Amino acid sequence: MITRLSTLFLRTLREDPADAEVPSHKLLVRAGYIRRVAPGVYSWLPLGLRTLKKIENVVREEMDRMGAQELSFPALLPREPYQTTNRWTEYGDALFRLKDRKSADYLLGPTHEELFTLTVKDLYSSYKDFPVILYQIQTKYRDEERPRAGILRGREFVMKDSYSFDMSDAGLDESYAKHRVAYQRVFDRLGVNYAICQATSGAMGGSASEEFLAISPTGEDTFVRSTEGNYAANVEAVVTQPGTPRPIDGQPEAQEYETPDAETMDTLLAWARSQNIHVDGRPVELSDTLKCLMVKITESGKEPQLTGILLPGDREADMKRLEAACEPATVELASEEDFAANPFLVKGYVGPRALADHDITVLADPRVVPGTSWITGADKKNHHIVGLVCGRDFQPDGTIEAAEIKEGDPAPEGMGTLTLERGIEIGHIFQLGRKYTEAFDVQILDENGKRSVPTMGSYGIGVSRLVAVLAEQRHDDKGLNWPVEVAPYPVHVVVANKDSAATEAAEQLVADLDAAGIDVLYDDRPKVSPGVKFKDAELLGMPYTVVFGRRYGDGVVELRERGGETTEISAAEITAAVLDILG
Amino acid sequence: MITRLSTLFLRTLREDPADAEVPSHKLLVRAGYIRRVAPGVYSWLPLGLRTLKKIENVVREEMDRMGAQELSFPALLPREPYQTTNRWTEYGDALFRLKDRKSADYLLGPTHEELFTLTVKDLYSSYKDFPVILYQIQTKYRDEERPRAGILRGREFVMKDSYSFDMSDAGLDESYAKHRVAYQRVFDRLGVNYAICQATSGAMGGSASEEFLAISPTGEDTFVRSTEGNYAANVEAVVTQPGTPRPIDGQPEAQEYETPDAETMDTLLAWARSQNIHVDGRPVELSDTLKCLMVKITESGKEPQLTGILLPGDREADMKRLEAACEPATVELASEEDFAANPFLVKGYVGPRALADHDITVLADPRVVPGTSWITGADKKNHHIVGLVCGRDFQPDGTIEAAEIKEGDPAPEGMGTLTLERGIEIGHIFQLGRKYTEAFDVQILDENGKRSVPTMGSYGIGVSRLVAVLAEQRHDDKGLNWPVEVAPYPVHVVVANKDSAATEAAEQLVADLDAAGIDVLYDDRPKVSPGVKFKDAELLGMPYTVVFGRRYGDGVVELRERGGETTEISAAEITAAVLDILG
Repeated sequence: MITRLSTLFLRTLREDPADAEVPSHKLLVRAGYIRRVAPGVYSWLPLGLRTLKKIENVVREEMDRMGAQELSFPALLPREPYQTTNRWTEYGDALFRLKDRKSADYLLGPTHEELFTLTVKDLYSSYKDFPVILYQIQTKYRDEERPRAGILRGREFVMKDSYSFDMSDAGLDESYAKHRVAYQRVFDRLGVNYAICQATSGAMGGSASEEFLAISPTGEDTFVRSTEGNYAANVEAVVTQPGTPRPIDGQPEAQEYETPDAETMDTLLAWARSQNIHVDGRPVELSDTLKCLMVKITESGKEPQLTGILLPGDREADMKRLEAACEPATVELASEEDFAANPFLVKGYVGPRALADHDITVLADPRVVPGTSWITGADKKNHHIVGLVCGRDFQPDGTIEAAEIKEGDPAPEGMGTLTLERGIEIGHIFQLGRKYTEAFDVQILDENGKRSVPTMGSYGIGVSRLVAVLAEQRHDDKGLNWPVEVAPYPVHVVVANKDSAATEAAEQLVADLDAAGIDVLYDDRPKVSPGVKFKDAELLGMPYTVVFGRRYGDGVVELRERGGETTEISAAEITAAVLDILG
Repeated sequence: MITRLSTLFLRTLREDPADAEVPSHKLLVRAGYIRRVAPGVYSWLPLGLRTLKKIENVVREEMDRMGAQELSFPALLPREPYQTTNRWTEYGDALFRLKDRKSADYLLGPTHEELFTLTVKDLYSSYKDFPVILYQIQTKYRDEERPRAGILRGREFVMKDSYSFDMSDAGLDESYAKHRVAYQRVFDRLGVNYAICQATSGAMGGSASEEFLAISPTGEDTFVRSTEGNYAANVEAVVTQPGTPRPIDGQPEAQEYETPDAETMDTLLAWARSQNIHVDGRPVELSDTLKCLMVKITESGKEPQLTGILLPGDREADMKRLEAACEPATVELASEEDFAANPFLVKGYVGPRALADHDITVLADPRVVPGTSWITGADKKNHHIVGLVCGRDFQPDGTIEAAEIKEGDPAPEGMGTLTLERGIEIGHIFQLGRKYTEAFDVQILDENGKRSVPTMGSYGIGVSRLVAVLAEQRHDDKGLNWPVEVAPYPVHVVVANKDSAATEAAEQLVADLDAAGIDVLYDDRPKVSPGVKFKDAELLGMPYTVVFGRRYGDGVVELRERGGETTEISAAEITAAVLDILG
């Protein structure tokens, strides 16, 4: 296919759009790939649509390769199945809801677990039908609170979502492993720089869950990587290396002090140093103080449970980590009313002893292990205790991951320390289990003629988001830079010489490439200056540009690799040279 | 690609779905192509999705061939542009409306004129940018009052819609002609049996408008074709052949009669015959009587205008034709109140004379021409006039197409008579003009530096509907029957012989065809009887089925053409035979 810039529906812009903050958004709009229609809702112009479709096809090929079967569910869905799973309500404001002319409730599908599950129930009844992996590449809708960054977080977007159905947990492991390989193939083919991060499996319990994060400073997700080895994890999924237990015997007795000016952890430390307090024979550190965060944890259908969370004083609580650790229960900070209702909780001076005295559950950071000695609140205003030893003076009811992760924290065994990075979620694979097959009572006859509920895996790729991710990772200050596999056109031919022989030669090259099955973007605009053409070529970002320019008279053309080298090539050999690279 | 029935996500049904009335709906559900999710909302299962995508690709190829450029607009659209064109209101209950979390109004796009127009306005400013033809293949939403027949009239469906933008009417003619050719190529490639029907251009005035109708007894649209030549038209667009004027001189004077028992056209005719009344020297016919239909015609922003419509007594009024003839004005029957307010209108006896006396506009059927003589109402109860001559005794203010079309009516010159047929609209091409470019004030600089408003063409193909249309036109009582170009698989291989050599030979054929780039549906199910496999093959409807059956032991396999011949072929030659047909 030959596309001529003289007729292509395109207008490149020199100015960034006013609402754009991240490079991919600016460049995709300026280069005429996408166009805003409403917040988080975009049109795909011809160049953008070509890249989107090519990404879809890479995903489709890899899904087909693993034996997944493509189907397509509607986006307009009736309320009932989402009522059954309670997601009609749970999704909150993020769900687009509407009524039809008969006032029946509908929604625009944010994800399709319900439909996949119901369709399998509808068609299949015997273990012989399993395993099966189904997928769709489809437009989804989520009413994001803050749609941002163009198509990076849109309200209408394209996803590949797939679900595996297996009769056994071992089968699910296989389906999961197949997806993991396929996803790596997809992202490798696309040339994305990504990490596979361990993720929390949330409400579903302890089964496998990994996120594929494209590494990018504009990412919304923070994750950690090890300085050695290839450990990577969501911040929520990082497991703290537990502290080393110490002997309790011989540790000095706990002692209460009046600490009038020690209302913060820093002033407490200053006070302790002024008292020349030592821990383990060294001067006291912030990490020797212990703070107690009061929260309420609510399990579904139960009363909120007041709980104390013990954290070393050098760490903030990370509410996202705490929430992930509590799932499926929800967690919130204790309110003024809670403190008022429990006068033994002295704000700013809560310590483990009062909690134990009043049968309040205490969950401790994993660093709080037997034999560790702490400076903590004495449960009365302006008083702290020094030398409160875990396992002697207090006994946590369990541990919890609630503390922030810091750059330099130890990585899992032998992998050095952790670095903090930012990423954009491009894929998620996840052992979902029987939540939906149980909700819809999917009963399958097993080998022994007994009814059995299949287990599911859930897998997603953000297809339209990948367009932005590639723009984000691969741009420079001049414009976009697509990998050959998904560039709208692998090659861009520019006529920048007024001699009609140059135009004829360019036309010949373009025709020859087209005949060889290579799509060409051809800048044949007669009245546009070479400078503008070059700027546009860099902005549009095809991987290779052939220029019939000043030196065409000497029989020489330029082959420019976007973001790379420019090579002068004999005009007679240019077709062969391009075919050599792309053929 | 080889798809094995042992693993394909498919369950064929022997029973018709309870809600299905037309063959395509029954068969597409029974054969596992589609599955109902809600009224007019369907899932596409693997086989159905393959055919849908193949139809999309045929459409895409022909659109690209004419130089149209593909883009893709969102389905979720803000209210504002549709407010500007008043379609937010005009669309009535057929529009799905919703609100986002900030209570902003959105709609699900039923058609995208607004977005195409705004995007052209956004990007283009000079005549040099034109002409341009843009298209998308996209999911559309209409809240149909009576979604019916599965995907034949759905509420979520796939359309190809395109718009041409030209600086001149001559340019629009060219863009229109290009679409007409492309549409014929699409429907010819798909093997649809269709007619191109002249259509009314409705509110837009007299420019070209044609519908492509697939001929089918289950169609909702009635159209006419000529017995000779290839004239075809929507019933609304048929132009009545006008009557032959006759000399007025020498015709007997009009005479009033008391006609006590002649309250219907039939009893009036009986009375006239009992009086031995002759017209043009022959006994009176029903077509010599003239009835007067009282209606109110309302132009936008004006008062309703009481109007008399004169029709020969042998024809009913066709309200759809009348409505089309009045557009953009609307028309309704005169009410009891209207008759009461105008006592000179004697119900059942209204004639042209009273209307003329009271300055009521009179529009006549084109058969009512000067010199024709009529038996009609005398404007008083139980009285008629005989011999009221047009051009002498009354003078219509104009003509109007309001009479029904009948089988056998004369076709346009030299084309014999008209037959009435039923069809399903699969395409519409339409000179839209400047309605939208004016509404959005699209100003383009022309060759002389003056501002000019481009003119648009509007063109649509019902892509998902075509799946149903092909099923409707090509099925038999055993199942579906796809043309090679859009069959999910061109060939279906069935093993129906328990000898393992037969299975090995089938596997070899399937592998050879796959290697030659031919996709194969392969019935490898080990425990399914030959009879069930044959029934499924007919139901699923691949164009060719190869059977490794009873006679495989003799070295013979069967090549079955769906709905055609079965040929016995030497097993050694079957690959070559299939490649010969499909390669």
